[in-house]
Amino acid sequence: MAEAIPMSRSRTKTTKLVMPPDTNHHGTIFGGQVLAYLDEMSAIASMKHAGAAVVTASIDSVDFVSPARVGDVLEIEAVVCSTGRTSMEVFVQVHSVDIVTGARKLTTESFVTMVAMDEENKPTPVAPVYPETKAEKALFDKGPARRANRRERQLIKHS
Amino acid sequence: MAEAIPMSRSRTKTTKLVMPPDTNHHGTIFGGQVLAYLDEMSAIASMKHAGAAVVTASIDSVDFVSPARVGDVLEIEAVVCSTGRTSMEVFVQVHSVDIVTGARKLTTESFVTMVAMDEENKPTPVAPVYPETKAEKALFDKGPARRANRRERQLIKHS
Amino acid sequence: MAEAIPMSRSRTKTTKLVMPPDTNHHGTIFGGQVLAYLDEMSAIASMKHAGAAVVTASIDSVDFVSPARVGDVLEIEAVVCSTGRTSMEVFVQVHSVDIVTGARKLTTESFVTMVAMDEENKPTPVAPVYPETKAEKALFDKGPARRANRRERQLIKHS
Amino acid sequence: MAEAIPMSRSRTKTTKLVMPPDTNHHGTIFGGQVLAYLDEMSAIASMKHAGAAVVTASIDSVDFVSPARVGDVLEIEAVVCSTGRTSMEVFVQVHSVDIVTGARKLTTESFVTMVAMDEENKPTPVAPVYPETKAEKALFDKGPARRANRRERQLIKHS
Amino acid sequence: MAEAIPMSRSRTKTTKLVMPPDTNHHGTIFGGQVLAYLDEMSAIASMKHAGAAVVTASIDSVDFVSPARVGDVLEIEAVVCSTGRTSMEVFVQVHSVDIVTGARKLTTESFVTMVAMDEENKPTPVAPVYPETKAEKALFDKGPARRANRRERQLIKHS
Amino acid sequence: MAEAIPMSRSRTKTTKLVMPPDTNHHGTIFGGQVLAYLDEMSAIASMKHAGAAVVTASIDSVDFVSPARVGDVLEIEAVVCSTGRTSMEVFVQVHSVDIVTGARKLTTESFVTMVAMDEENKPTPVAPVYPETKAEKALFDKGPARRANRRERQLIKHS
Ligand SMILES: CC(C)(COP(=O)(O)OP(=O)(O)OC[C@H]1O[C@@H](n2cnc3c(N)ncnc32)[C@H](O)[C@@H]1OP(=O)(O)O)[C@@H](O)C(=O)NCCC(=O)NCCS
Ligand SMILES: CC(C)(COP(=O)(O)OP(=O)(O)OC[C@H]1O[C@@H](n2cnc3c(N)ncnc32)[C@H](O)[C@@H]1OP(=O)(O)O)[C@@H](O)C(=O)NCCC(=O)NCCS
Ligand SMILES: CC(C)(COP(=O)(O)OP(=O)(O)OC[C@H]1O[C@@H](n2cnc3c(N)ncnc32)[C@H](O)[C@@H]1OP(=O)(O)O)[C@@H](O)C(=O)NCCC(=O)NCCS
Ligand SMILES: CC(C)(COP(=O)(O)OP(=O)(O)OC[C@H]1O[C@@H](n2cnc3c(N)ncnc32)[C@H](O)[C@@H]1OP(=O)(O)O)[C@@H](O)C(=O)NCCC(=O)NCCS
Repeated sequence: MAEAIPMSRSRTKTTKLVMPPDTNHHGTIFGGQVLAYLDEMSAIASMKHAGAAVVTASIDSVDFVSPARVGDVLEIEAVVCSTGRTSMEVFVQVHSVDIVTGARKLTTESFVTMVAMDEENKPTPVAPVYPETKAEKALFDKGPARRANRRERQLIKHS
Repeated sequence: MAEAIPMSRSRTKTTKLVMPPDTNHHGTIFGGQVLAYLDEMSAIASMKHAGAAVVTASIDSVDFVSPARVGDVLEIEAVVCSTGRTSMEVFVQVHSVDIVTGARKLTTESFVTMVAMDEENKPTPVAPVYPETKAEKALFDKGPARRANRRERQLIKHS
Repeated sequence: MAEAIPMSRSRTKTTKLVMPPDTNHHGTIFGGQVLAYLDEMSAIASMKHAGAAVVTASIDSVDFVSPARVGDVLEIEAVVCSTGRTSMEVFVQVHSVDIVTGARKLTTESFVTMVAMDEENKPTPVAPVYPETKAEKALFDKGPARRANRRERQLIKHS
Repeated sequence: MAEAIPMSRSRTKTTKLVMPPDTNHHGTIFGGQVLAYLDEMSAIASMKHAGAAVVTASIDSVDFVSPARVGDVLEIEAVVCSTGRTSMEVFVQVHSVDIVTGARKLTTESFVTMVAMDEENKPTPVAPVYPETKAEKALFDKGPARRANRRERQLIKHS
Repeated sequence: MAEAIPMSRSRTKTTKLVMPPDTNHHGTIFGGQVLAYLDEMSAIASMKHAGAAVVTASIDSVDFVSPARVGDVLEIEAVVCSTGRTSMEVFVQVHSVDIVTGARKLTTESFVTMVAMDEENKPTPVAPVYPETKAEKALFDKGPARRANRRERQLIKHS
Repeated sequence: MAEAIPMSRSRTKTTKLVMPPDTNHHGTIFGGQVLAYLDEMSAIASMKHAGAAVVTASIDSVDFVSPARVGDVLEIEAVVCSTGRTSMEVFVQVHSVDIVTGARKLTTESFVTMVAMDEENKPTPVAPVYPETKAEKALFDKGPARRANRRERQLIKHS
């Protein structure tokens, strides 16, 4: 099995300006735009971990707890927080920052599962991940429980 | 309270061609693009029901059960399937169709909660929805259970 | 010759929200955006009929009879309404719907001619189409007249 | 009535590179992209003539006489070639140039009718146009005939 | 060595309408959008000269001397004004035109160096360029001085 | 005068995936796309410093020292490194990372000058910046020299 990789290797931060085309006529960002950012950042974090192409297998539920507005800055951070054989679980958070006041609020957060793909576009094994900080360990340790939840939710859906 | 509105009023279908810019180098559509379509179609369906602007409050978990490829046609259908005071629950499904073989497969499905907003950008009441067909009734009847699940998942997140 | 295919097979509906980037500073959608939608929907409808890639050969004249505005919903419907050896004539209509009042108006309609292409990018034969409903029959029956008109308009142009 | 303006005032040229996102998987530009360019260039030419905002009233039939491919350069030229009270008829041509061989071919050409709009978004009078060169005069002189044709085609459509 | 080519061969003009998505909330065009236009037009001019693909090697400093606003027309002109073995120096200017008053102002101008690339993506020789008009000659004659400046600025950066 | 602000306040990092629509047919990113990123990141960094809207005044020369390819990850970092009365000088660097090998290379770097704008779209004073680390101090200390260079280059241009 490939050597374990620290969570810091995949940690990816990005900063985006909320632009008019991303917003409705109240100047509030579209949920779909935020979801696209969640997916893009999860893809980059998991590609860094896997050193391979990835596809999105699933995204956990997403609650939009506060709106972001035109002119706000979005800060998005993603990190691989647990791994399966070919899949990686990515924790991703979006905060909005008001440029004038500096106020920073959680917009949303979720877990995205990405699967590494080989050149034939088949799932391919990834190295295990390990936590280094206390916060990373807390995320890492609850990985199996979240994974079990996901399997259960799939069973319910298909029953 | 406003008069109840049938689910057929909000039912919205759309058809999209998967284009190269929407796909990775394996020619598979990005998950983020599909999520953006889910949100856009849920917004249109709920705007038709509410006759008002809407924002996305949440999206339930999304499993991408099969990939869509460049040249495939995506068929997306959204319908308001239950209502709260100011919120609407939208059921949305995405299928991909292979143009040559005609094969049609489920890509993903989920529930999106949209909130109607008035001119001051505050939540505003919506009319209740009611089902007409048997399939609509099945969706409608499980609305309260799904709503309870969502409240529970929020409590867990914040505990 | 391939077996005839009913018009219902190619009938394609789509729903789009008019967004600020698609509009001028009066908030009215650009004609070019509507034309791009006409072409995209005609392509999808004809690909469904042909089970092959297509290119646009021509579009009949387009009159924009009423404007669509930011926040309106566009409903676009396209259907293959007559066929030649390798070409398909697609009838396409665009309506705009005012979300608040529910008022639905014709924006424009036209006929687009698409040609099926094989893997070497050469025109390839398509199956004939046949109408099922009375409205479809009316469209289908005038196909040869429209086709003759198109030939004539090309002759005039090049004289 | 405002003083007449020469055709040269509105003549507008543009050059675009055909990019992968504008093309199908054969690398051929989408008809819809070309139509969007026709509209955009007609809008600019007529805005230059009118010194006012414009909307697209109609576009005459468009025949795509040769394909343009990824890497080709498109040369688009638009000029106001006749005027009504509030409307302007724009002649617009698209040529594709092969960068390696220098070969230049007509892609398509058409007439677009634009209407000048005032601040209340109502049709507003425009100055008459006049031709200076022989080629311009030929275009200008057939304006009334084309205009009559358009009125006739509208009558046929609505009969 | 390939036969010399006149500057007129590569001269490329384009006209763009400043659209809301290209602007900040004051309605002023983003600098990044103007820079992207400079690069795109330099690429087209140099591809016309070289008859080959090109990459951008460098762009000289860019001063934005006046803003362009939503609804303004941008006129961009690029021309290959001197050549090295595999590189071409392109002079590119952007003017904004106010549609209502007709006022035309310089937005910015710069020199972009493009390198011709062969099929293996390696620099490939280009034909020399020669000036025909007096203005072209002035541009052409200072080419070697500008080239020397660029080499010097690179040395300073890396010291 | 407003209280001085440390460089760390404006430091902004972002991560982007190079996508097919951003690249030429060799799969190399367009220079114009990189320039647009430089501008966008400089805008965000300077908005964080100023707590106000900004416009781009100028960008120093940009040398593209190595190409970035489809599937590479771009890491872009911008920081306000010196201030005038209303202007801010932003240092911005772009690196590309090869996902498979992890190799990280400088793509380009430059200095962008942004000006803070008040609600009437007039230049407005900004707080001074100060360095905290040794590397920041080196950047900060050469600010006046770079500023003098810029003034000189403008004089040369207009002579
Ligand atoms: C994700 C996908 C590759 C899984 O394929 P599969 O045939 O189920 O393959 P496997 O059974 O080998 O599963 C591969 C991994 O994915 C995980 N997985 C599959 N479905 C999942 C889901 N819905 N949520 C989380 N993980 C999932 C499996 O648990 C397994 O993980 P592991 O190797 O760490 O144990 C496949 O469902 C697919 O191609 N989906 C579409 C992906 C896509 O294109 N997304 C973008 C938008 S459609
Ligand atoms: C959604 C939002 C308006 C709710 O605001 P609030 O202050 O919680 O308002 P209320 O308590 O009156 O709730 C309004 C409705 O939203 C529902 N709601 C709130 N959060 C929800 C969630 N995460 N999931 C589902 N429904 C939710 C409430 O149950 C209530 O429904 P009801 O009226 O049918 O009973 C607010 O959280 C918000 O603005 N979020 C950002 C929305 C957004 O901009 N999304 C796009 C991307 S960020
Ligand atoms: C074009 C439009 C403004 C005309 O409105 P109207 O109520 O017919 O106004 P008028 O009768 O005063 O006509 C104005 C001019 O448009 C011309 N016109 C109207 N329809 C036309 C058509 N289909 N083709 C060519 N010219 C047309 C009239 O002949 C008249 O020209 P004139 O002043 O030079 O004689 C109106 O049909 C409209 O708003 N259409 C939608 C425009 C739009 O938004 N297009 C973008 C995509 S939908
Ligand atoms: C431009 C590039 C091909 C030069 O490669 P190289 O190994 O230095 O090749 P060479 O030494 O043969 O130089 C080729 C030409 O480029 C010129 N050149 C190289 N760097 C330059 C710069 N920063 N500014 C101006 N010209 C430059 C050389 O002077 C030479 O010109 P000449 O043949 O006319 O004498 C290479 O640096 C590169 O690939 N850069 C990235 C280009 C790119 O992808 N840009 C888009 C965004 S990153």
